[in-house]
Amino acid sequence: MLENSRTVRVEFGHCDPSGIVYNPNYFAWFDVSVHALLERGGVSLKDMMAELGIDGIPVAEYRTKFLAPSRWGDELVIESRAVKLHRCAFDVEHRVINAGVLAVECAETRVCTARDAQQGRVRARELPPRLAAALSGTP
Amino acid sequence: MLENSRTVRVEFGHCDPSGIVYNPNYFAWFDVSVHALLERGGVSLKDMMAELGIDGIPVAEYRTKFLAPSRWGDELVIESRAVKLHRCAFDVEHRVINAGVLAVECAETRVCTARDAQQGRVRARELPPRLAAALSGTP
Amino acid sequence: MLENSRTVRVEFGHCDPSGIVYNPNYFAWFDVSVHALLERGGVSLKDMMAELGIDGIPVAEYRTKFLAPSRWGDELVIESRAVKLHRCAFDVEHRVINAGVLAVECAETRVCTARDAQQGRVRARELPPRLAAALSGTP
Amino acid sequence: MLENSRTVRVEFGHCDPSGIVYNPNYFAWFDVSVHALLERGGVSLKDMMAELGIDGIPVAEYRTKFLAPSRWGDELVIESRAVKLHRCAFDVEHRVINAGVLAVECAETRVCTARDAQQGRVRARELPPRLAAALSGTP
Repeated sequence: MLENSRTVRVEFGHCDPSGIVYNPNYFAWFDVSVHALLERGGVSLKDMMAELGIDGIPVAEYRTKFLAPSRWGDELVIESRAVKLHRCAFDVEHRVINAGVLAVECAETRVCTARDAQQGRVRARELPPRLAAALSGTP
Repeated sequence: MLENSRTVRVEFGHCDPSGIVYNPNYFAWFDVSVHALLERGGVSLKDMMAELGIDGIPVAEYRTKFLAPSRWGDELVIESRAVKLHRCAFDVEHRVINAGVLAVECAETRVCTARDAQQGRVRARELPPRLAAALSGTP
Repeated sequence: MLENSRTVRVEFGHCDPSGIVYNPNYFAWFDVSVHALLERGGVSLKDMMAELGIDGIPVAEYRTKFLAPSRWGDELVIESRAVKLHRCAFDVEHRVINAGVLAVECAETRVCTARDAQQGRVRARELPPRLAAALSGTP
Repeated sequence: MLENSRTVRVEFGHCDPSGIVYNPNYFAWFDVSVHALLERGGVSLKDMMAELGIDGIPVAEYRTKFLAPSRWGDELVIESRAVKLHRCAFDVEHRVINAGVLAVECAETRVCTARDAQQGRVRARELPPRLAAALSGTP
């Protein structure tokens, strides 16, 4: 399955008055990590949206544990890997490592959506073959 | 147990290029909802931090399901309630209702922390009695 | 000219490790204030975007002075008023009042843009008459 | 005078429903750029706060022009340079370059503050010599 790793530096503005990372930032970082994971697999979500009528890959579920705080100046490694494919969805797991310590773990499920031309509503759609192949690590 | 409800309006800047709420915003809203829940119970986290040496009430765990998207201009009702007390932690559940539809549900666990004077590190500490009483709805 | 005022409460998560509002939040608040100003004038930007092919009203210029810090728990009043109309743009001034003290002042210029169908690029366009009328306070 | 340059990639979540960077993000990026500028000069704000009783270097003024929009996937170069030292403050200019085009320019003034031990209030204080030397490019 597809894997990627990237580094995030905790900046002053990421932290709250307790001096630790304000937790919504982690979810913004996980979103960037999913995009980076797809790119690592040779897939551009932006291109898929333009070419295949995909509306997005919104998160359907997060399960997140914060095990240790991170602070201004810390260098975080975010390891992300695809763990399971569903018909219209896929699961990714993230691990945030701070100085060798597991600081946060998050499992998320993303759904592939299309805009329904007739009703103007968004609905789940099958994963495009190139996306499924990339996630499974067999592109 | 303590309950509260508040309204959030989805603004232009809360939304991403797909036109739906960028999901880190929900976690910022849940944080405000926890503070509002405590206030509803007559407890000011700010005062507890100043008076009792509490360092904060960081989130230890989130379990979040996104069931329906929300869009610019939507009025969201966020219902929050304390559901369980632990020795050093407490559980809160949030439900985001958009036009009568359950859009997001989130269960979170918060830990009460103190700064360890000798080691300068943060550790879990017992819930202050007035916080426990407020959460249990028996203040 | 059109005027509006609204209240923002400074939340824990708006503040940085120095304990004061992290300044990017003010610009998110000013954006909400401009939308609220238009609504006060009976104009919905969302409707104008859907009906008139307007792409948005991006900021062309901000001139901002931070005169006093604001902190967790402060109640801010943001007073906003249209001050000048240009052919394709308009000027708004904001004053952030914290406990009777002028904390921030900001003058901004917004440009009305349309998407150029042929080139797919964004260009300035004349203010729609109903927008101009609303801003000038003569709707 | 001290100069630095760094690259920011525009991510999906930085953009609004019009598909362009939601402007508060630029101010978060400028804040990171100021910290990076100081580091380039061998100065750690974090250390100065711990060692010299400095409370922070909050922004007193921004003058910002948005000249061209930036979009998801764009690579931005942010060039930052110290331009003037005052007794208790310093001026920095930022230029955001997107594919060779000047997209944003911002001039900011930062004030060095200390916490007044007796009154618990924040007040401007003289720039520490090592900060002034670093900014002037003569460390």
